[in-house]
Amino acid sequence: MVKMTNEKYLVIGGAGFIGSNFVDFLLTSGESVIVFDNLISGNKAFLEKNFSNKKFTFIEDDILNWRNHLKELNEIDTIIHLASNADISAASIDPTLDFRRGTILTQEVAELSRIIGVKKILYASGSGVYGDHKKEILIEGITELLPNSPYGASKLSGEAILSSYSQMFGIKVACFRFANVVGPNQTHGVGLDFLNKLKSNSTILHILGDGKQSKSYIHVSEVIEAVLFVSNTVEEDFFVTNISNGDRIDVNEIATIAIKIAGLSESKIKIIFSGGDRGWSGDVPIVNLSAEKLVGRGWKSKIGSEKAIQMSLISLWDQINQN
Amino acid sequence: MVKMTNEKYLVIGGAGFIGSNFVDFLLTSGESVIVFDNLISGNKAFLEKNFSNKKFTFIEDDILNWRNHLKELNEIDTIIHLASNADISAASIDPTLDFRRGTILTQEVAELSRIIGVKKILYASGSGVYGDHKKEILIEGITELLPNSPYGASKLSGEAILSSYSQMFGIKVACFRFANVVGPNQTHGVGLDFLNKLKSNSTILHILGDGKQSKSYIHVSEVIEAVLFVSNTVEEDFFVTNISNGDRIDVNEIATIAIKIAGLSESKIKIIFSGGDRGWSGDVPIVNLSAEKLVGRGWKSKIGSEKAIQMSLISLWDQINQN
Repeated sequence: MVKMTNEKYLVIGGAGFIGSNFVDFLLTSGESVIVFDNLISGNKAFLEKNFSNKKFTFIEDDILNWRNHLKELNEIDTIIHLASNADISAASIDPTLDFRRGTILTQEVAELSRIIGVKKILYASGSGVYGDHKKEILIEGITELLPNSPYGASKLSGEAILSSYSQMFGIKVACFRFANVVGPNQTHGVGLDFLNKLKSNSTILHILGDGKQSKSYIHVSEVIEAVLFVSNTVEEDFFVTNISNGDRIDVNEIATIAIKIAGLSESKIKIIFSGGDRGWSGDVPIVNLSAEKLVGRGWKSKIGSEKAIQMSLISLWDQINQN
Repeated sequence: MVKMTNEKYLVIGGAGFIGSNFVDFLLTSGESVIVFDNLISGNKAFLEKNFSNKKFTFIEDDILNWRNHLKELNEIDTIIHLASNADISAASIDPTLDFRRGTILTQEVAELSRIIGVKKILYASGSGVYGDHKKEILIEGITELLPNSPYGASKLSGEAILSSYSQMFGIKVACFRFANVVGPNQTHGVGLDFLNKLKSNSTILHILGDGKQSKSYIHVSEVIEAVLFVSNTVEEDFFVTNISNGDRIDVNEIATIAIKIAGLSESKIKIIFSGGDRGWSGDVPIVNLSAEKLVGRGWKSKIGSEKAIQMSLISLWDQINQN
């Protein structure tokens, strides 16, 4: 159970995948929520059921323009900062995208927090801060941080900025290095990609790389649980943790699950691999994200990667067929 | 001895303290040098003797405007990126200064390098990436990076950006976490500050903090030697190292040296401490920067912190009295 405290939350990127799930959870728990979203990758429809809730405010604007909304941004206790570029492979063709839609945003969120006097920032970092360490287990404070993509660089830069603001200006900060998050309202990701491809062509499935890329996938419901667990229990002023279930699943296994959920038979589908060990040059083929730090604090994932993928693809297949 | 290779260097921030010393060294060694400097903290006079050298080009502009100078920026082998905000305590009153005059610059330098096809970037990072670890020895790849100032955050963000560009776009990168660099043409720093104060008032000396802040100081001539040693010998595509002599000197000792060099007697000067263990909130009172990584590669400082301070204050006292 997550203890709630009648706080006022500002969820930046609150109309996105993780954000919309977070907002639903907070409002159901009786909290007040302001969402800031520019709707670049967010979707207003994800929040539709909340617009009649008096504890909910929606600001449709870029967080870079926060100075225009100071009246609405009063007495915020906690910022949940989820805004970033959602398509991490886009860096191959637009290498500055993650800087523009990530690093600069986080600098602005830090300034906003300092100026309006926010007590706490919960920041969505990512496993990309580690870079490519082959099969090595990725451990907070131990594994060297060598990001190999602009997405990873942007997440590490965000952590660095918030570390300095936390210590200089007394803002409590927790940074979360998520495994691949999956679940309802997902807008990007390999499983969703497969379902969309199978929906439009049920005889051929193209797979980027060799299909052996192997990563941790965590269900969005557990991400929300873990973030709020840290927010309510961790006393350190600056805290960094992975959020992971500690296990992995590879892309070929995800393809098998997607084919099954799409009601198709694997024997009748031609699978074509683009080849190589990764989907794009900044990809990391194996992500072995340690779960031990949070386990040591008292939070443990109950949904493994395979189950998380299954749950998410069932809900996404429903969403695809409703549209 | 440093082996030279008839290369073309672009020195960004080349009219600044470290930059101007670097440019002198490279030109004396017969290399071609283009300097890019906006003269915010740089000084054209530092480069005066080089303007008649045919191998020297000076571009007076902000590096953010590099796209306007593509004709001059052809066939660059190596970028030495030294541009950043030089007054790190200014963050107390302008917290975004290091982002604007540090992080954004480094992102632009990465893009410039990718677009014009630079082979190698030598990047001036700093000990600030580590943050405040009390008396712990700061070791590359071991000590957790928890910057406590916008300057430190900016340097870590720069390393993160260059790590990703190195791996995604095949640019060789070395990042140097300098101790406090001292020497001729210095524009900021505690020893210089003391000399300037003593020049205008020879009876009172104000010291920020309790004077017990203790750090490594390295002479700029050794920084140049170490950077070029790494450039010429290290084979890794991405390399991070401290540049330090491994010893320290405290602020009170620096005051004693400054008073002596100014030709004054310590017994006749009233010393007033502002109090507290640090000069400003993002300061780090003790910096114990390991020198072992470069020693292991074959480069070792020959000038300790005390000697480096003495050498630098002698040359700075000359400069102060010439102006």
